[in-house]
Formats: sequence, structure tokens, C-alpha cells
Amino acid sequence: MDSPDLSFGDFTLPGEAGHEQLTLRLAQQWGADTIRDSDGTQLSPAIVQSGHAIYSTLCLVRSVQPWAREHRDQLQQNFLMSFPVVAEKTQTTITLLAGYFTEQFSVNAKASPKRWWQVFDRTTGAEVPKARWRFNAPKGTVTIERTQAGHTYTVNFLAFRLWEEISMYNHLTNHWGDREHLAAVDPMQPATQKVLLTFLARWLTEHPDTNVVRFTSMFYNFAWFWGADHQRLRDVYSDWGDYAMTVSPRALVAFEKHAGYALCSEDFVHGGLYNSTHNAPSRRYRDYMAFVHDFVIKFGRQCIDLVHRHGKKAYVFYDDHWIGVEPTSPRFREFGFDGLIKCVFNAFEVRLCAHARGVATHELRLHPYLFPTGLKGEPTFKAGGNPTLDAKNFWIDARRGIVRAPIDRIGLGGYLSLVEPFPDFQQYITEVAREFRLLKSLHARGRPWTAPFKVAVLTAWGDLRAWTCSGHFTAGVQLYDVLESLAGLALDVQFISFDDLVAQGVPAGVEVVINGGRAGSAWSGGHCWADPRVEAILTHWVQRGGGVVGIGEPSAWPQPGRQFRLASVFGLDRDRGERLANGKFKFTKPAGIIGTHFITTDTPVGTALDLGHDTDGLFVLGAGTQVLAENNGSPRLTTHAFGRGRSVYLSGFKFTYNNTRLLHRALFWAASREDQWGVWQSENVRTEATWFAKAQKLVVLNNAGSPQHTVVTLADGSSRQKVALKAHGIAVLDV
Amino acid sequence: MDSPDLSFGDFTLPGEAGHEQLTLRLAQQWGADTIRDSDGTQLSPAIVQSGHAIYSTLCLVRSVQPWAREHRDQLQQNFLMSFPVVAEKTQTTITLLAGYFTEQFSVNAKASPKRWWQVFDRTTGAEVPKARWRFNAPKGTVTIERTQAGHTYTVNFLAFRLWEEISMYNHLTNHWGDREHLAAVDPMQPATQKVLLTFLARWLTEHPDTNVVRFTSMFYNFAWFWGADHQRLRDVYSDWGDYAMTVSPRALVAFEKHAGYALCSEDFVHGGLYNSTHNAPSRRYRDYMAFVHDFVIKFGRQCIDLVHRHGKKAYVFYDDHWIGVEPTSPRFREFGFDGLIKCVFNAFEVRLCAHARGVATHELRLHPYLFPTGLKGEPTFKAGGNPTLDAKNFWIDARRGIVRAPIDRIGLGGYLSLVEPFPDFQQYITEVAREFRLLKSLHARGRPWTAPFKVAVLTAWGDLRAWTCSGHFTAGVQLYDVLESLAGLALDVQFISFDDLVAQGVPAGVEVVINGGRAGSAWSGGHCWADPRVEAILTHWVQRGGGVVGIGEPSAWPQPGRQFRLASVFGLDRDRGERLANGKFKFTKPAGIIGTHFITTDTPVGTALDLGHDTDGLFVLGAGTQVLAENNGSPRLTTHAFGRGRSVYLSGFKFTYNNTRLLHRALFWAASREDQWGVWQSENVRTEATWFAKAQKLVVLNNAGSPQHTVVTLADGSSRQKVALKAHGIAVLDV
Repeated sequence: MDSPDLSFGDFTLPGEAGHEQLTLRLAQQWGADTIRDSDGTQLSPAIVQSGHAIYSTLCLVRSVQPWAREHRDQLQQNFLMSFPVVAEKTQTTITLLAGYFTEQFSVNAKASPKRWWQVFDRTTGAEVPKARWRFNAPKGTVTIERTQAGHTYTVNFLAFRLWEEISMYNHLTNHWGDREHLAAVDPMQPATQKVLLTFLARWLTEHPDTNVVRFTSMFYNFAWFWGADHQRLRDVYSDWGDYAMTVSPRALVAFEKHAGYALCSEDFVHGGLYNSTHNAPSRRYRDYMAFVHDFVIKFGRQCIDLVHRHGKKAYVFYDDHWIGVEPTSPRFREFGFDGLIKCVFNAFEVRLCAHARGVATHELRLHPYLFPTGLKGEPTFKAGGNPTLDAKNFWIDARRGIVRAPIDRIGLGGYLSLVEPFPDFQQYITEVAREFRLLKSLHARGRPWTAPFKVAVLTAWGDLRAWTCSGHFTAGVQLYDVLESLAGLALDVQFISFDDLVAQGVPAGVEVVINGGRAGSAWSGGHCWADPRVEAILTHWVQRGGGVVGIGEPSAWPQPGRQFRLASVFGLDRDRGERLANGKFKFTKPAGIIGTHFITTDTPVGTALDLGHDTDGLFVLGAGTQVLAENNGSPRLTTHAFGRGRSVYLSGFKFTYNNTRLLHRALFWAASREDQWGVWQSENVRTEATWFAKAQKLVVLNNAGSPQHTVVTLADGSSRQKVALKAHGIAVLDV
Repeated sequence: MDSPDLSFGDFTLPGEAGHEQLTLRLAQQWGADTIRDSDGTQLSPAIVQSGHAIYSTLCLVRSVQPWAREHRDQLQQNFLMSFPVVAEKTQTTITLLAGYFTEQFSVNAKASPKRWWQVFDRTTGAEVPKARWRFNAPKGTVTIERTQAGHTYTVNFLAFRLWEEISMYNHLTNHWGDREHLAAVDPMQPATQKVLLTFLARWLTEHPDTNVVRFTSMFYNFAWFWGADHQRLRDVYSDWGDYAMTVSPRALVAFEKHAGYALCSEDFVHGGLYNSTHNAPSRRYRDYMAFVHDFVIKFGRQCIDLVHRHGKKAYVFYDDHWIGVEPTSPRFREFGFDGLIKCVFNAFEVRLCAHARGVATHELRLHPYLFPTGLKGEPTFKAGGNPTLDAKNFWIDARRGIVRAPIDRIGLGGYLSLVEPFPDFQQYITEVAREFRLLKSLHARGRPWTAPFKVAVLTAWGDLRAWTCSGHFTAGVQLYDVLESLAGLALDVQFISFDDLVAQGVPAGVEVVINGGRAGSAWSGGHCWADPRVEAILTHWVQRGGGVVGIGEPSAWPQPGRQFRLASVFGLDRDRGERLANGKFKFTKPAGIIGTHFITTDTPVGTALDLGHDTDGLFVLGAGTQVLAENNGSPRLTTHAFGRGRSVYLSGFKFTYNNTRLLHRALFWAASREDQWGVWQSENVRTEATWFAKAQKLVVLNNAGSPQHTVVTLADGSSRQKVALKAHGIAVLDV
């Protein structure tokens, strides 16, 4: 292969005015071709005219504060549910914003409450007739007549948001005092659209040195409702994927015209659960998302076209105001973005970035950010911090994804001046940049080898939430851990929804379907399993030879006598207590983990499985279910042959290198492919091997912070290559 | 008071032929007025003519074996659900009894399958039209046409029972070889009724020395379905309260005539869950129970009248074939029984026996039974056993109930000859009999003092399952533990159903309602909470000053955004994962248990609460909820003021003396009666005090196996009486 230049390019450096010399020195040292500004930093003329490409950040909906101040009706809105009130008498008054942060919200008294709001008797579940309540605008209350003592009432109402959430969070976290509270305007309002386009045109003219406009992001932030008591209930509701903050009477009217039916407040409020990404979504809400996505694409496209007409590129940041952008949607390409930038903590986020189609450039923002402290307040670039070790640990996580899927650029963010006292950090980033360029050059020659079968992850969201759940890694959501394991494995993974499954069956080439998570969650599927076709399609597919790996509460949808729709396939079900009188088949208790099964071959005999928060109450249906691990009589790891196919069940999952290997083997076993196990496999679980066939290079990663030795099995399945690796190291071998 | 004779009477001794001398010596020593036979023992003429009253056991439905053998259509029946079968093709055949014990069951091929059976596609939940399946009687199979691959099918069918379950259990447990398999006939069949009455008349004539016919019990055993594989799945289904084994075409036809609507097989099968007492019952099933109860009373009354016409008394044993007898039903008195005999392990079973109205005599069969080994196979009357210590431990449990509620007689069962080598056991039973007679004499003067308010336990069953759940104490069912605590406390406890509550509200005098258990269970209430009136009545009652104590998942009935119907009352709810995006109010974490609260006053500060299997995922709604104990952020013990009333929440409950005190205090606090706490209260939690006001006697029990000291507060609430107690001891004081 040609020797690529590993010293320059594909690297974005955060510049900082007042530190021009450092900026330019590190740009040289790290091979940066691009310099960016960051929240809180400026670039000086010496930097922007240094010959580097320049990225400039821009959050449009926050950019027109005079307009926002003068036109409160143009602010973004959302439905809120008042905190529940229990009636004591026949008249009950509810203060709408009681419990909410009134610097964030104000009641929208302008749009007809009787048209848009709903009052519910939550005890009966029925809506209170509109004639039986009245809104008192000056007091911000709703008074309900003929209430029944002992019944609970709530009001769904529209609220304007006075303070944009990212501004609010940064302001309050960093104690910005009397700095202006920025508000976000709603681009669905025609007058605001014009203001924003005018602003953007002027901004583009005023930034001649900017090469790339980095949008942060488009127009609507993920849902984040704050409470009045910041110490004890700051986040009343917070979901990275909920479209709650796009709603307005205008949007609802337009939706009805578009979809042919009307939504009501309860479609958004849902008893206070709103539409959390973690819960299986309703069809109506999915329709609304598609409607908003369409709007964001159309108005976004106008903005991006304007950028292009000014000879600049448009990149979008994949966070904050990303609602409606949907980088993994098939329509994402319609925006015409040139690049997508994702900040990454983990391997799955790398895959998430790489997975977006319709942009030329996929760029990662690596951690640590150049801030004094990390996200949890731990020291980074200050006394007590070890930013180099942090960088190594973040890099080995991200690298697992980078080696599997092509990424175009990397970069950093924050205050560059903070790195000055850390020469070892400066040096390590030089190495990271070189490693990245090397891996990119291998991908450029051709995609790396993957197992001879495909794997599908089945969720309610399918590909729209591929390689993520909702925002950052969250403990207790098993799918994050599964994704983190999958992100670094030599597997061709796809994400399918229940709609996909019903429409087209299991995709061709897929030999294992993964399903799991909490019952009712979007990940396990919740009500999507109410459609009997889902059970029938998957069950019959396994009968004909398919494989299923279930985790936690796969296919859970309670019916009398059955919790898991695929109970017969797994040879196992869950008892939530209703089977107290039903006997349970006594399986043969394994002595610790059975290390002799194919799946547990690399798990030392006697090791206790650590699957995080285990699901309990499992029971097997008969002797056909082999229990490889159990706890207090509840199976934790089982295998089951069903028809010509197979299933594996895990009662939980936690990302560890041992569990990643266990999952990898479980997938091969479920696919009945265990005879093909081993090719391009690295023996030591703390290491991982990747074969770039076109480039004829074997890449071996050390995911550990200590030197490791391993042996990699080569293409013929028997030859073996010994490899020694430095801590956090990488080996690129000709074999 | 008069000095009662504590040396004689109210004691039933199991006699044993061949051991006449021992029988008569112990009858003398224990003051037995009555001698009984037992399963496996006979009484000889020397015993039955010794001048003692004689009890003879009789199980009518098992008593006419020649008739049963010759008339298989007169055997008892039930619905069974075939084990699920997944279709692979368009025709699917199910072997009905596959997986079941064929010595217990045979398919009822006589009653029209198309009329009585149902075939279900469990994947769609729909019944398969009768035209699409056919029964092959010789093969015992059902073949279903036009099945869909991947769908799961089951058949609900009628089966005769060839082997009566108690006979089967004893036979197989004790390896009785080729001894006859006894079958139970169905007294709902008119021909069988005649046979039984004829048999009974003859039996009564042939047993001139019998004074009391002890029925074991009436006609139908609790449900017990055995599997083919006795090692790995013996009990396919077993429930002490399920009426499953009363069903027959005749019963179903009669029910329809009686109730005006027809039941179908699925009303009994319920997807394989059947009608377990632990799950909230349907209205249809409750109607059926009432119908069977009516039949059992009517035919039972014929038998009892016959007994009375022979100048004998009729007692009924409260176990085995007790279905339809329902000793706590208001109709129980219609049988005309003279006595009820309950074998007891615990205090709550004593209360269960005492609670039955409509019999003159309430008799307890104490443990240990005179068998070589105990129920779990542990040695009792053989090498390694300590029957005296066993007797003491059983006695202190039963005594807690006896001191609270009047019992008329006690006795033993089994093989008397086994006690011969244990003179200390013989001596201890003498003491037990004296203690019992003393307590009975106190009750005879007047009921003991109770707190100045009543407590109601709210369940789906109400008073019909007062002082029990279903059969013996079962780990994991919190209400058993609650009942065991309540059984020994100076409280007036009643049991109410949701029907009672809706019809009449909370009964007069009740100041605290207890509700809890697993969501969906009969104890928590399950679907009974779907009726909004229940929530409204209780909530409004607490607003006006009532108190609620919730345990585990009280008032659980999932709605969007709310799990507990009484969430506002408790100031707390449960998140089963669907609230991942909803913030949770950060309560003040207690350091261990807060010992300064009234409820935890007797709990040493820093003690870890042991509540058994805790419910997790609890969260408080606001600052009004005081958390007294928590685990990993999930509250375990909370208090909440609501309106003029109060609530206490416990995330679990386990019967211990510490927890009994905690519950006792929680009830006083919830009733806002903490200022009246202390009267007739014994300080040491291992002891309990009872004041017999009429008799002017203070009884103090030592529930511990070691000597204890305590101090009892007297009637004025301030005077205190010191008491020293021997291990397992009792003190009866004039104060």
C-alpha cells in the first residue's frame, strides 16, 4: 500500500484568541488543517488568517434576541402537565406552573386554552368537559367545577419557553449572574423564518474567513423541563430524543392538514411520561415526528442553501438542537449538509456518527474537552487531573468504533490554553492524530472483514435510533451496553423496527436477531409485540434456522400465562409473581458458569457473571433449555434449540471485555456458526483484531491500560500470529 | 375469678391400637377427654370403650371405591390446558395429556368436546373455530387445521381424575407400591349422591362408639395438577383455594341455569394461570365459587343431618377437600357443623380457625405431628430430632393467636407410640394443655383489651380469605407476614373486599386500612383498582382523617404516569422503568433508620431494616414525604401527611418481632393515635402483653427461646409492671 501522510490533515483544533502562538504551534504539531471557535472562545485575525480552514459555530434560533424579546409569541412552546392535584371539594383550582421553573416557562394565554388544553380526571382517566373548567390568565390558574373529592386532576397546557435550555444550563451551572437569558424563537412562525434568514445572510457576509458554518444544531432542542426546586427536582423531565419542544398551535394545525387527523395535548403529555425515547412510541407520535422532520429539513435546506451560496460549507453538530435533524433518517441527505460532527464518549457513538448517510464528512469531537473539569465535576486540566490518561481511556473506547467504521475527521473542543502546562497531553494527541490517520487510510482501501452472517438489532425505533438509545450512556438500559460491545466487533450489524419486520420479514443475510431491554421499553418493543405477526414471523424464522439472542425482557408483552412472546423460542419465560401457583421446571443447576459450552469457552470456569442489573423470576419451560448460569434458581444465561434454529438468553448485560466476548460467541452460536468461529479472532479478551483485507493489514488493539500479549487466528482458521502490545497500544501487521 | 380445672378437658389425643396402655396413660396425663384415629392408625375396642369421646375420620368422596371403579363417568373432573405447541405447518396435532401425569388424569372423551373444549391460538389470543379442529379419542389428540406457522396453540379440555390427590401424594411419598389408587367421586352426580348417602348411613350404624364424625373434609380438594416428570415438574399447578377441581359439564350447565350466563373453559384455564388465589379473581369466577359453595352446603347439610340423626356430632377438617366449605363465609353456619378443626403452624392460622362463625367448637391440631419426620423431611420423633423444642417453638407461635382469640379445644395427630421414648415431650404437652386451658378460661370471662380503633385489611377476597392467603405460609407473599404479625397484636382487625368498600365505604370504627402485596395480586387488588370509586373513596377517607399503611405495591394498577392509585396519599409511587426520563425528587437521605420517629422508636438507630424481598424503584413525590429508611435511593419506609389523614409505606414486610413492633407503631401513627400508644404494651419486642379486663389478668408471653425481662405499661398509661419470664414462658399477673 502507499504510505499515507500520517502527520497532517483531518484534524480540527480549537483556537483561542490571546493564545495565537500556542494555537499555531499545536496546529503544526497535531497536523491540524482546521481551526474552530468554541462556546466561550473567539478566534483572532492572526488565527483566522493563518491559512487554516475555519469552522464557526452558529445557533440560529438563539441568534436573534432583540426579535425574541419583542415578539414573545414567536418563542418556542410545549405542552406541560400541571402537577397532580387531589380534589377535596366540588371546586378545585390548579396553579398551572406550580412546581415548574418560571424563568423557563410562562403559560401561553394567547392561543385559545379551550381549543388546545385538556383537563383530566386521572382517577377515571376521562377528560373533563371544557364547559366545566375556566382559565384565569392573570393568576395562571385553572378552576374546575363539579370535581369529585378524592379524584386527581391535571391540566395539560401550552407554555412558552422564556429561556433556551442550553443557555439556561450553562448560565446557571457557571453562575453567569446578570448575563442575558437567551430565548429560542420558533422558525415555524413565518415572521421568524424571515428574520432568521435575514440574520443568516448578514452573518455569512460578516464572516468572510469562515469556511465551515457549524450549526448547533438546527432549531429544536431535546426536551428538558426544569422544576422550581433546583436542589431537589431540577429535571422534571429530560429526554434526548423527545420532540416535545417543537409543539405549537401552528404546528398542530399544520400537522392535522398534513396527516388528516388531529393530535391532542395528551398525545404529548401521556400522563406526565411525555414521549420518552425509552418507551415504545405510539403511531401518532411517530407521525408527528415525521411531520417535524419534514419541516426541519425544508427550512434547514433554505439555510444551508444560503450558506452554500456564500461559498461556505455547512456542518451540523449532532446534539443540543438536533430534534428533527435525525442524521440516521433516510431523508437526512435532503438537508444538503457537508458534514456531521458528533462528540463521542464511547465506541457506539462513533458508529452512530459513521452510520449517518448523506454527508461527505463524518467528524468526531473527542474527549476530554479542554475544560478545567469533566462532566461529573472531576478535575481534568487542573490540579489533580491527569488529562493524558483521560485521553488514552477515551481514545481506546472511541478507537474500537473507528477501526470498524470509517470516520473522516477528528478534533477537540474547549479552551486550548488549558493544555499548555501538559506537554505529555500535547504529545499524546499527536499520537492519536497519527493513529487516526492510519486507520482512516486502511478504511480508504476497503472495509474490514466481518463475520459471514449479519446481525439485526430489533427495537421499536429500528434504524432511526441505530447505534444509540437516547443521548449518553445510561446505567440500567441494557441496550447501551450491548451497543458498546457490538460497536467494536467484526460484525455487520443493522437495526430494524417492528414495522420493518412485519413489512419485509427478517432481512436477507441476517442470521441472528437481538432483542431485549425492559418490558414496555422501546428497546424490548413494548406494545409493538401486541401485533401477533411479529411473534409469528420471528418464531417461524427461528423454526427455519434463524437465531435469536434475548436480553433482559425480550419480546415482553404480558398475556395471561405468558410474559415473553418468544417464550417457546427461548424455552424460557418470566414470572412477575402471577405464577406463584404454577410449578417451575427444575433445571440442572450449573456449578458456576459451565466453561465447556461454546459460548462460555473464554469465561474462566467458576467466574461469576456480571450482567449488571439482572432480570429475576426467569424459569425454563423444559429440559430442552440448557442453563449455563443461574442465581437463586433464576436462569441468567441459557441456550435453547428450537426447530432448526437456536436462541440464547441473557438476564442482563453490562459492557465488559469478558461480556463482549460472551456476546460475540452467543451470536455465533445462535447463528449455528460456531464452526466458523476463530478467524481473525484475538484470544486475549482485552484485545481485539481487525483484518483489512484490501490493505492486507491486521490491526490489533489493546483495550487495556497495561501491556498485553495475545494470539490472533488467521484467515485459514488455524495459523496463529503472536502479538505483543503496549498499554493502550495498537499493532498494524502484515500477515 | 373461679379457679378453673386446668388438668382436664378440651384435648384430643390420637389413639393407637396395640398401644392401649400408652394411649390411656397419656390420655390421663394430658387430661384428654377425646381420643381420635388418624390416617394410618386404628383404635381398638379397649380404647373406644375407655369412656373417652371418640372422633373418627371420614373422607366421603374417597369412601366408595367399588362404585368409583365401575363408574368412571362419576369421577371428579377439571379443565386442563395442554402444554403449548408451536405450529410448523398448516396442520398441527396436540397430544392433550403430554406433560401431565397420566395416572392422575384421563381425557374425558364422553362429554362433547365441541361443546366444552376450546382451542386457542395464543399468538392472536383468538379461539380457533370449532370446525377447524377434531378430537381423536383413541390417540388422545386434537388436530387443528389451517394453523399458521410460528403461532402457538393450546387446547382446553376436560379430564377425569383417576387418582385422588391426597391418596396419590401419600402413596407416592411413602412408596405404597401396589396399594389401591383411591379415586374421588363427584357428589354433584345424582347417582353418586345416593351411593354416598347410603354409604354414610351404613357407616354411622357400623360405628356405634364414634361420638364425632370428623369429615376430611367435604367433597372437593384444592387444585393440584401433577406433571409426568415427578423429578423436575411434579406440580404443574397447585393452589389451596382454586375451585378448578369442582368442574364438570353438569356443574357448568347448572351454573348457567343458576347465574343466567354460561362459563367457558378459559374462565378456568386463563392461559394456564387457572384461578390462583394469589391473583385477583374475576367476577365470573367469584360467581362460580358461590355456586359451588351453595352446592357443597346443600349436599353437605344432607350428610350432616344424617350424622345428627345418628346422635353423633359432625366436625370438619379445614384442609384437603375443603373447597366449597369456606369456613369464613357467612353461609358456613348453614352446614350445621358442630366443630371445625384446623391444623396450625402459625398464629394467623389460629385466628383463621377462631374467625369461623357458625360452629360451636373451634379446635386446633398442633404441631409437631407425631410422625418420624417433619414436613420438610427433618427428623422429629427419631434420632437427631428434638420434638420437645419443636413443640415449644410451634406453641409460642400458636399461643400468640390463642391469647388474642378464643379457641375451644386443642389436640394432636399421628402415631402416639412415637412419643414413648420422649418423656420430656410428654411432660411438655401436659404444660401446653394446662396453658391452653388457662387462656381459654380467661377468654371465657371476656375478650381481651384491644386498641381504641379498628384496622381493616383490604384485599380482593375480603373476609372470605380473612387471616390467610392461600394455604401455608409462602415466602415472598408479604401479606402472610403481615397477618402473622397482626395475629398476636392487641388490635381489632377485619378484612374487607373492594366490593365491600364500594358498597359501604370504610367500615365504622376503622381508622387504618392496610393494603399491599405484588401488583396484580389478589392481596394488592390488581384489577379491582381499575374501578375509580375505590381510589376516590379511600383517598377522600384519608383526606378526612383516615390512615393507610401500604406494603410493597399497594393500590398498584398501572396507568400512564402512575403505578399506585394512592400515589398522592402515600406521597410516593413506583417506577418500573418507564420514568427513566422523569426526574425524581431528591429526598433527604436518612442515616440508617431514623430512630427518633414514633414508628421507629423501638428500632435501634443504625439497624438495617429486614423487610424480606423489598420492592425497588420507589420514588417520593415531594418534600412532604418523610423517608425513614432507603436502599440505593429507593425509599423503604416513609410517612406522609395527606389532608387530615396519614399514610405509611413499607417496601416489603417480613415477620420478625422487630417488624411486628414497627407495624404496630405504624398503625398507631397512621391512625393519628400515637398519643394513646403504650397502654398494655410490653417494652421488650420479644414479649407481648394481653389484658383480660373482665378477668383482671395481665398475660405476658415470652416469644423467645431464652429468659426475658420486660416492663408492661398499665391502663393509666404511666404505671409500669416489671415482668421476668422463662424461655418460652408465660406470666399471668394480677395488676
